[in-house]
Amino acid sequence: MAEHGDGWHRTGLRVLYGDTDAGGVVYYANYLRFFEAGRTELIRSLGSSYRELEERGFIMPVVECQLRYKSPARYDDLLVIETRITAVRPVSCRFEHRIFRKGESRLLVKGYTVNAVTGADGRLARFPDGFRTMLEQVCCGE
Amino acid sequence: MAEHGDGWHRTGLRVLYGDTDAGGVVYYANYLRFFEAGRTELIRSLGSSYRELEERGFIMPVVECQLRYKSPARYDDLLVIETRITAVRPVSCRFEHRIFRKGESRLLVKGYTVNAVTGADGRLARFPDGFRTMLEQVCCGE
Amino acid sequence: MAEHGDGWHRTGLRVLYGDTDAGGVVYYANYLRFFEAGRTELIRSLGSSYRELEERGFIMPVVECQLRYKSPARYDDLLVIETRITAVRPVSCRFEHRIFRKGESRLLVKGYTVNAVTGADGRLARFPDGFRTMLEQVCCGE
Amino acid sequence: MAEHGDGWHRTGLRVLYGDTDAGGVVYYANYLRFFEAGRTELIRSLGSSYRELEERGFIMPVVECQLRYKSPARYDDLLVIETRITAVRPVSCRFEHRIFRKGESRLLVKGYTVNAVTGADGRLARFPDGFRTMLEQVCCGE
Repeated sequence: MAEHGDGWHRTGLRVLYGDTDAGGVVYYANYLRFFEAGRTELIRSLGSSYRELEERGFIMPVVECQLRYKSPARYDDLLVIETRITAVRPVSCRFEHRIFRKGESRLLVKGYTVNAVTGADGRLARFPDGFRTMLEQVCCGE
Repeated sequence: MAEHGDGWHRTGLRVLYGDTDAGGVVYYANYLRFFEAGRTELIRSLGSSYRELEERGFIMPVVECQLRYKSPARYDDLLVIETRITAVRPVSCRFEHRIFRKGESRLLVKGYTVNAVTGADGRLARFPDGFRTMLEQVCCGE
Repeated sequence: MAEHGDGWHRTGLRVLYGDTDAGGVVYYANYLRFFEAGRTELIRSLGSSYRELEERGFIMPVVECQLRYKSPARYDDLLVIETRITAVRPVSCRFEHRIFRKGESRLLVKGYTVNAVTGADGRLARFPDGFRTMLEQVCCGE
Repeated sequence: MAEHGDGWHRTGLRVLYGDTDAGGVVYYANYLRFFEAGRTELIRSLGSSYRELEERGFIMPVVECQLRYKSPARYDDLLVIETRITAVRPVSCRFEHRIFRKGESRLLVKGYTVNAVTGADGRLARFPDGFRTMLEQVCCGE
């Protein structure tokens, strides 16, 4: 699953036992794993990949994130991770995320991450040219 | 390690290999694990425990959180998780967190969580009386 | 992806940053997550699900497992988790697992789990009838 | 906590919510995290550290492990991870692990890991001299 259209890229993900906690629901930290899956698949859907960016000597560490937990996901749920880009700046960009149960309209979790761009030395760097253009083409604005 | 004083409770935590990622630093989701350790030990230091609260039929799910990543923690670092309570409301409270390397003053990560209070049925509930008073006694205001 | 044939069920899985460690490879514990995904999808492919078993009041805790690490999986690898059942006994069964990079023949990790069957009270129980028959139909022997 | 004596090194560890799963117990993969903590603290107690070994250009990847799950650990349990070395060979060594609840004699989990020694290039290497001697001094035999 990996579609576009309204600016949101969608990727599917099945909840493992290992994602849940003793409360019977997905552990709150693990939604950040799901956000990571969403970002990675969005970039892949554009014809590049985060691994390729790394091989060119760049990384995109998360410098800020926020999550709002509306309703819990549970074991074996098939989730849809929606991801879109809402800002592309010289040395950073911003991803928005929403998580739903597949086939349902109730929002489970939403949030964003701000990712910086750095060289392998950890110093802020500008996006490689083609990469920035690629992100801008799907950027929705905030 | 578990001290008070300036409103911040401090707990120590050693970074495992299993906390890190291929970037050579702690994976961004895992700081939420560290925040959890901080909240749990703060409550224990007040003479109660989160497990005890659960046994009385209440849970405190995180409904919102934010993290700002300033500088990465690395494998085998001994971290200090600082936690304080900045708001106690009828059906929720707010924890602030800061993470440092032990003996260093450079802030690595900071953030907060807002925790609701619910009964075992998942419905918002008021804190049990003694528990709320206990949190208020160390609440620092926002 | 979910095929059968030679007794091995196959399911695909993409390695996240969150699965890796500072050694640049998948953290050794996380292959047990991948094994879990393999078992779950094998059971689903048979027309049932582990969640359904739970809803009938049974669980299948792992009582023993072994892993042999031959070659490391890395960030963004697309893995194939191969799973088959090699023993079905009254109160337990045994799953074998092998992990490959998709399209490659080099074995990365292999291992097994022995899963007991218990009621919700944690006591050993016999498999529900239909469930045991279902597992036996794909059991390969040891 | 970090004592020796009967060959077993002991280190304490508090179970987080994030270590548990929807079954209400510690997720089976996470005991390998606890084993890692045990190995790391055993080496530290000998006056060296795994990080130091890495800085000298060596790593000790796990090439095999086994776990036997006797009784589940639960949220907020204070665990004692017991670790000892039972073999030191030219290019590998073997750690045994046992996990108990603090103050209790019932075994929860036991297992072992076999760790190879490699250079940064991933090729098998001999232990640096002093390091091997250090391990041999606490080796208990199998």
